[in-house]
Amino acid sequence: MSDGQMSEASATLAAARVMARCDALAEISETAGALTRVYLSPEHLRANAQVGAWMAAAGMRVWQDSVGNICGRYEGQTAGAPALLLGSHLDTVRNAGRYDGMLGVLTAIEVVQALHQQNQRLPLAIEVTGFGDEEGTRFGITLLGSRGLTGRWPESWVNHPDANGVTVAQAMAQVGLDGAAVQNAARRAEDIAAYLELHIEQGPCLEQAGLALGVVTAINGARRLNCRFTGEAGHAGTVPMTHRKDALAAAAGWMVFIEQATQKRHPQLVATVGTLQCQPGAVNVIPGEVQLTLDVRGPDDRVLAELLAELLHEGEAIALRRGLTFSADEYYHIPATGCDEKLQAALSLAVDQVQGCSLSLPSGAGHDAIAIAERWPVGMLFVRNDRGISHHPAESVMESDVALAIQAYQLAVCHVARSLSE
Amino acid sequence: MSDGQMSEASATLAAARVMARCDALAEISETAGALTRVYLSPEHLRANAQVGAWMAAAGMRVWQDSVGNICGRYEGQTAGAPALLLGSHLDTVRNAGRYDGMLGVLTAIEVVQALHQQNQRLPLAIEVTGFGDEEGTRFGITLLGSRGLTGRWPESWVNHPDANGVTVAQAMAQVGLDGAAVQNAARRAEDIAAYLELHIEQGPCLEQAGLALGVVTAINGARRLNCRFTGEAGHAGTVPMTHRKDALAAAAGWMVFIEQATQKRHPQLVATVGTLQCQPGAVNVIPGEVQLTLDVRGPDDRVLAELLAELLHEGEAIALRRGLTFSADEYYHIPATGCDEKLQAALSLAVDQVQGCSLSLPSGAGHDAIAIAERWPVGMLFVRNDRGISHHPAESVMESDVALAIQAYQLAVCHVARSLSE
Repeated sequence: MSDGQMSEASATLAAARVMARCDALAEISETAGALTRVYLSPEHLRANAQVGAWMAAAGMRVWQDSVGNICGRYEGQTAGAPALLLGSHLDTVRNAGRYDGMLGVLTAIEVVQALHQQNQRLPLAIEVTGFGDEEGTRFGITLLGSRGLTGRWPESWVNHPDANGVTVAQAMAQVGLDGAAVQNAARRAEDIAAYLELHIEQGPCLEQAGLALGVVTAINGARRLNCRFTGEAGHAGTVPMTHRKDALAAAAGWMVFIEQATQKRHPQLVATVGTLQCQPGAVNVIPGEVQLTLDVRGPDDRVLAELLAELLHEGEAIALRRGLTFSADEYYHIPATGCDEKLQAALSLAVDQVQGCSLSLPSGAGHDAIAIAERWPVGMLFVRNDRGISHHPAESVMESDVALAIQAYQLAVCHVARSLSE
Repeated sequence: MSDGQMSEASATLAAARVMARCDALAEISETAGALTRVYLSPEHLRANAQVGAWMAAAGMRVWQDSVGNICGRYEGQTAGAPALLLGSHLDTVRNAGRYDGMLGVLTAIEVVQALHQQNQRLPLAIEVTGFGDEEGTRFGITLLGSRGLTGRWPESWVNHPDANGVTVAQAMAQVGLDGAAVQNAARRAEDIAAYLELHIEQGPCLEQAGLALGVVTAINGARRLNCRFTGEAGHAGTVPMTHRKDALAAAAGWMVFIEQATQKRHPQLVATVGTLQCQPGAVNVIPGEVQLTLDVRGPDDRVLAELLAELLHEGEAIALRRGLTFSADEYYHIPATGCDEKLQAALSLAVDQVQGCSLSLPSGAGHDAIAIAERWPVGMLFVRNDRGISHHPAESVMESDVALAIQAYQLAVCHVARSLSE
């Protein structure tokens, strides 16, 4: 066993422990029979306490920071050395799965536990963070945990209300945190060397490739638009096809184009029309207006911008040809987050070592790494999940995949901690 | 002036009277500032009384039949001769226009008035009926007036409730009619020789052709279906385009096909997707299910059936290609109503005489003639209306078109009354 590699037997034990801990955390829920655990809920604090206890047992010094992240530190060869940060989130969507987020925190603890058991210290400290909010379920604003750590938490956020009118600051007070002390969670640039996050894929690519593990190239940029075709409502029986200004027929043509143009431009681009309403909406009336949303994502902002321009141009062209009008308002725009190339290489090396080959893929979903990447280099390791189903109780991973993942994570952490300290 | 043709001056006067009477009837409404007059409402009875008075002034014997139609009879050369029936309906949709239905009743009265003024009797009697229900606004069942006259009123209809739970029989009792006497409205086959109805087009064809008048070839058959594509919902960010089972993308492809195949098959066919709901319906979720309605219409039942088969076949094929399922349930089917060829010829001759040419076109909307055609030959004369707008307060006709229409109607009535008695 070279360079800190875990034995298969250790990895198997660690994976079983991770699975059991995922089950245990899934019991800490606001709702009986379904997993929901939102930021600053009593259950959030209970989960923090549990995870903190596991961190401590793995040899870490443990604290809860001022925005409610649970943090553990395993010192390196030199006390106070910069840290290689590991982690993911502990909050969930409503009626969630038990691996999204949690798997990344619990596997990171196993990485430290293995070092601790071997009494091994690396040139960097290892810190593990269980972020308090990534999903944004409670307040609608996302990545509150990781943004607390980066210090990029806008001042106004403490006044942001949840659905019951309780602000973030009020919710913090209810669990013993101080909304005025949010900035204390921010870490200095020199404290952290890099960030590695393990997460379930939440998509079907690894499963389709028959692989347990993959390395993330980038977290896709995303843009969302509210779009509208406005034509003219009319009698479905009396207006000949050639005289119509049918907004739904126009939208249909556009949707066909969206699918085709997106596939044609790049296999890593996705475009989705997820909602569509047509007015007036009666079986015997030609739709005069259609509102629909467009969600486009891709790992390269320039390519994504080109795709979006092409799609909007075609929307306009279709409207023009049919004598309709078309409008599109972008209301959400998040740039792509590139993963650090050296971290990708280290992860790929580790994945290759444990599964014989590696696969690089973009992440279609957002992650804590988006926020962290604003200040530090990030890398992400993906674990196959069943049919790509996520944000759903059916979310599932194989224990054998988790064992492989812990082995690869462990290898990558050791490699990165050594190479970054050189 | 040959064969009973009205002078231009008489037609102009008659048209002015018709326009004024349309305005007067539009005042008889359940709602202030908007025209709504439903079957068996107090306003229905008031409109009947007003129209009955105009019928009487035009030399007709007037009665209200047992389902609430207002009827007038102008005897022919022989008392008790079979009648050429003219008419249309006096009920409206909610927030209606003032010409849909009413124009046909009031122009018919002018035709009789012109005969009466010249003391002219035809070989057939002329009867005018203002039907009490064509739209079905109140009870959801349609053509109650004309079906009373044909005797094809199902027994169960008297127990049919309106939105307030008032049955047809109770509503009849409230206005002095007897639900048990519905069958008394039925006419004997030999009483009526044929039916001619004048109506606004409710579509843009005459306007597009630059013509005031046209002759209806058939009232289109219609079929309505609830359709559904079932695929698989998924994360809009993580599922690659090639792995999706996007129900909305499938529906979009189908809608494009519907439009193209319908136009390709026959210019008189129309197909409309008027409603579409997609589930789960979130900007960042691939639609797993789409429900949509299909409304197809055409003047030839065989051609319509062929079109529908082609459309459903393609729906299945699209679903198969994409790994989805497709279903379609027909819940409404009304066959096409052909207009009598001799009546069409008489109307075309009359239209040609007053506007120099004639245009034959199908009716995309339903009319009282559908019910009447179950027992007697029917013919219909269409009058251009502004932009084809109907069932809307903006419904509008030109007075000069109405003058031409009355002249043509008059010519056709005289011609038909003579030819049918030969």
